[in-house]
Amino acid sequence: MKPSIPKGTRDFGPVEMARRNYIFNTIREVYALYGYRQIETPSMELLSTLMGKYGEEGDKLLFKILNSGDFTRSVSTADYEAQNAPQLAARFCEKGLRYDLTVPFARYVVQHREELQLPFKRFQIQPVWRADRPQKGRYREFYQCDADVVGSDSLVNEVELLQIVDEVYRRFGIRVAIKINNRKILTGIAEVLGAADRIIDITVAIDKFDKIGLEGVNAELLADGLSQAQVDQLQPIITLSGTNAEKLATMRQVLSSSEAGLKGIEEVEYVLSQYEGAAEASLDLTLARGLNYYTGCIFEVKALDVEIGSINGGGRYDNLTGIFGLPGLSGVGISFGADRIYDVLTQLDLFPREAHAGARLLFINFGEKEGAHCLRLARQVRQAGIPTEVYPDAAKMKKQMQYANALQVPYVALVGEQEMQEGLIALKDMTTGEQQKLTLDELIEKLR
Amino acid sequence: MKPSIPKGTRDFGPVEMARRNYIFNTIREVYALYGYRQIETPSMELLSTLMGKYGEEGDKLLFKILNSGDFTRSVSTADYEAQNAPQLAARFCEKGLRYDLTVPFARYVVQHREELQLPFKRFQIQPVWRADRPQKGRYREFYQCDADVVGSDSLVNEVELLQIVDEVYRRFGIRVAIKINNRKILTGIAEVLGAADRIIDITVAIDKFDKIGLEGVNAELLADGLSQAQVDQLQPIITLSGTNAEKLATMRQVLSSSEAGLKGIEEVEYVLSQYEGAAEASLDLTLARGLNYYTGCIFEVKALDVEIGSINGGGRYDNLTGIFGLPGLSGVGISFGADRIYDVLTQLDLFPREAHAGARLLFINFGEKEGAHCLRLARQVRQAGIPTEVYPDAAKMKKQMQYANALQVPYVALVGEQEMQEGLIALKDMTTGEQQKLTLDELIEKLR
Repeated sequence: MKPSIPKGTRDFGPVEMARRNYIFNTIREVYALYGYRQIETPSMELLSTLMGKYGEEGDKLLFKILNSGDFTRSVSTADYEAQNAPQLAARFCEKGLRYDLTVPFARYVVQHREELQLPFKRFQIQPVWRADRPQKGRYREFYQCDADVVGSDSLVNEVELLQIVDEVYRRFGIRVAIKINNRKILTGIAEVLGAADRIIDITVAIDKFDKIGLEGVNAELLADGLSQAQVDQLQPIITLSGTNAEKLATMRQVLSSSEAGLKGIEEVEYVLSQYEGAAEASLDLTLARGLNYYTGCIFEVKALDVEIGSINGGGRYDNLTGIFGLPGLSGVGISFGADRIYDVLTQLDLFPREAHAGARLLFINFGEKEGAHCLRLARQVRQAGIPTEVYPDAAKMKKQMQYANALQVPYVALVGEQEMQEGLIALKDMTTGEQQKLTLDELIEKLR
Repeated sequence: MKPSIPKGTRDFGPVEMARRNYIFNTIREVYALYGYRQIETPSMELLSTLMGKYGEEGDKLLFKILNSGDFTRSVSTADYEAQNAPQLAARFCEKGLRYDLTVPFARYVVQHREELQLPFKRFQIQPVWRADRPQKGRYREFYQCDADVVGSDSLVNEVELLQIVDEVYRRFGIRVAIKINNRKILTGIAEVLGAADRIIDITVAIDKFDKIGLEGVNAELLADGLSQAQVDQLQPIITLSGTNAEKLATMRQVLSSSEAGLKGIEEVEYVLSQYEGAAEASLDLTLARGLNYYTGCIFEVKALDVEIGSINGGGRYDNLTGIFGLPGLSGVGISFGADRIYDVLTQLDLFPREAHAGARLLFINFGEKEGAHCLRLARQVRQAGIPTEVYPDAAKMKKQMQYANALQVPYVALVGEQEMQEGLIALKDMTTGEQQKLTLDELIEKLR
């Protein structure tokens, strides 16, 4: 019976790990370059921290941890019979696994508010757990890579977060397009139409413009219950096109009577004007992610050369920490999806050579005496910073070479009795098959 | 009501994270330098993988995860009444959190054996969870940093693992002593005495030699039930001293009739002769860690300048993967304790400047126009790889400087209207208080 792992979870072998580390390190470096500082929170949070923060569906997807010791103590048989699973779970369990990085961050800010200097710019790269039904590309344990700043209303934060996105994908070599919208623009549209509760229907319908055309969208809006007058009013929005400046000018007219709408336009205009990144950023009114959550600018990133959903998103939210009793703190953040980035880099064959795990050099082991000699040589090669292995056993040459090939070690060192006497190392280039005799210094020079 | 976290768990703020990353990165780099390759396994394992692997006490310390959905489905009220907590836990839960990195590694090797090239040298740096009673220095979530090689009996592995230990502590600047012993030597002692079951009592008693002297140890051994003849035989072992060579020579005489004992001496002799590290390594017969687990060489590392327990340990074990149906694979490994290393580095004030989180430069924000200008300057400074912040709001100067101080940002850039006109940046050194006007290129040169 072969052992296995829980469904929806994954082992990461050396090759995957090297690639994942490349992704995490790149994101980490760019976050740090912008002055974001890393924190980590415990994998387990109290259920009182997590419950009710992700909606009813979210509560069901929390992994709950059974209390240690006699967890049944306070639950009588009568209670067991009378209560349903969620009620019993709440009594058997006081802890749960982190569901995202945002709620623990809010909890962290409130718990440590006296030590924190605001604005607080933090990033966090940790796994989260969700009891989702496992399916292709959806896992029960996966990493999130979030950066957020709380305690500053300034749009400078939005600008820098877009620059971070741009820089990360530039480093990856992934061509992306950044979509930007603003919750206040959506509020403005609803205000102007007098249809505050229809904004989701409206954005969903507008989003289909490319597929079903103007008539199709209009038909859908009417079917959604909007009046002909409202649909007429929406025409410039549905067909909105041109440069960002043109779009913003049109929207400024359409929303001229809405204070919120004009404020949203002004914010988008400022962010777009200061961003100056290489990746194209454009206003997209159909972007409406997490409508109940975000309150200002919203972003989303799409890869241009791969058919895949959003690989990145973020936005501004007010009152993140209010749920934990600290109101009035505004925040803005972004989140990179490591798994999607992994898939994009794989599909486009963009992982660099450095994202390869393992030694650059393997010393073949010809026996005890030669092995001891190679151990000494290997130490010196390592002192030059070159990852190096000595094959531990004096196994058959074929087996040792097979090992080098399987691990894609680019160079192999052969030091037999003759080379020991000469004070040289026979170095084989595993790619070309060429072999040459070198001094230790020459070898280090070549491999460095 | 201030939010909190489960007892025994920790938040790591930016300063702690920078220091922890320094520890993990150092260990990771040295492991990689020796050709060990990183893997990660899921936080959750099936309880069938974990249960029974850590003894009865260990089973109690596993954190178990409640099954999703209606976890009560298969447990009737009668069963609930009849069964005890462990039995019910086994029915309510099929998954548990990783308790160490060794069992998941063994599971990994067996599950992936067809993809693996042996010998398999892996390292793994991940948290583990134990429902221990929380106390000072003991946590319910903590990181382990393990390296193991399976599928090779060669002592070259032991030698390299000691070199890794030596190199890691050399990089940290922590002076350590390495203790080495061999399970076979202990077996030999028991064989020679004809007291195979007393080996733990014997090592415990010998370990007190420095405190209670020869007579004290002898008295304790007699009290433990050893005969006077056995205690007499043990005298050269209790008073063992001198160089490693002298100790080995004495032991070779004492154990001359034990094949296992002589084999153990030979192994220790080989490892000590090839090790060649800077930290002193010495034979210590009182070292008997995890006696039921290890089968060959055993190591332990102590910091010389701090009163703290072992900061590192390891050894060779046979048949690690046998529990999962793959017998005959020998392995040897080491484990670094990140929390203890953190404490030692803190006590000895050894964290380097690079283990500091945050920006090297902060641009003060004088208003919208200046802020926009600084955003552009900051981008160029970042392109030179210098972590840089722009204070997002045009807050009072005092508040911005307070922010720089709190985050220990070493340099602050002041660019007002005048500097904008001059094309210069006023750079303030926050340590000396000195201020000078520089071009952007000069500033980058200075901070790089």
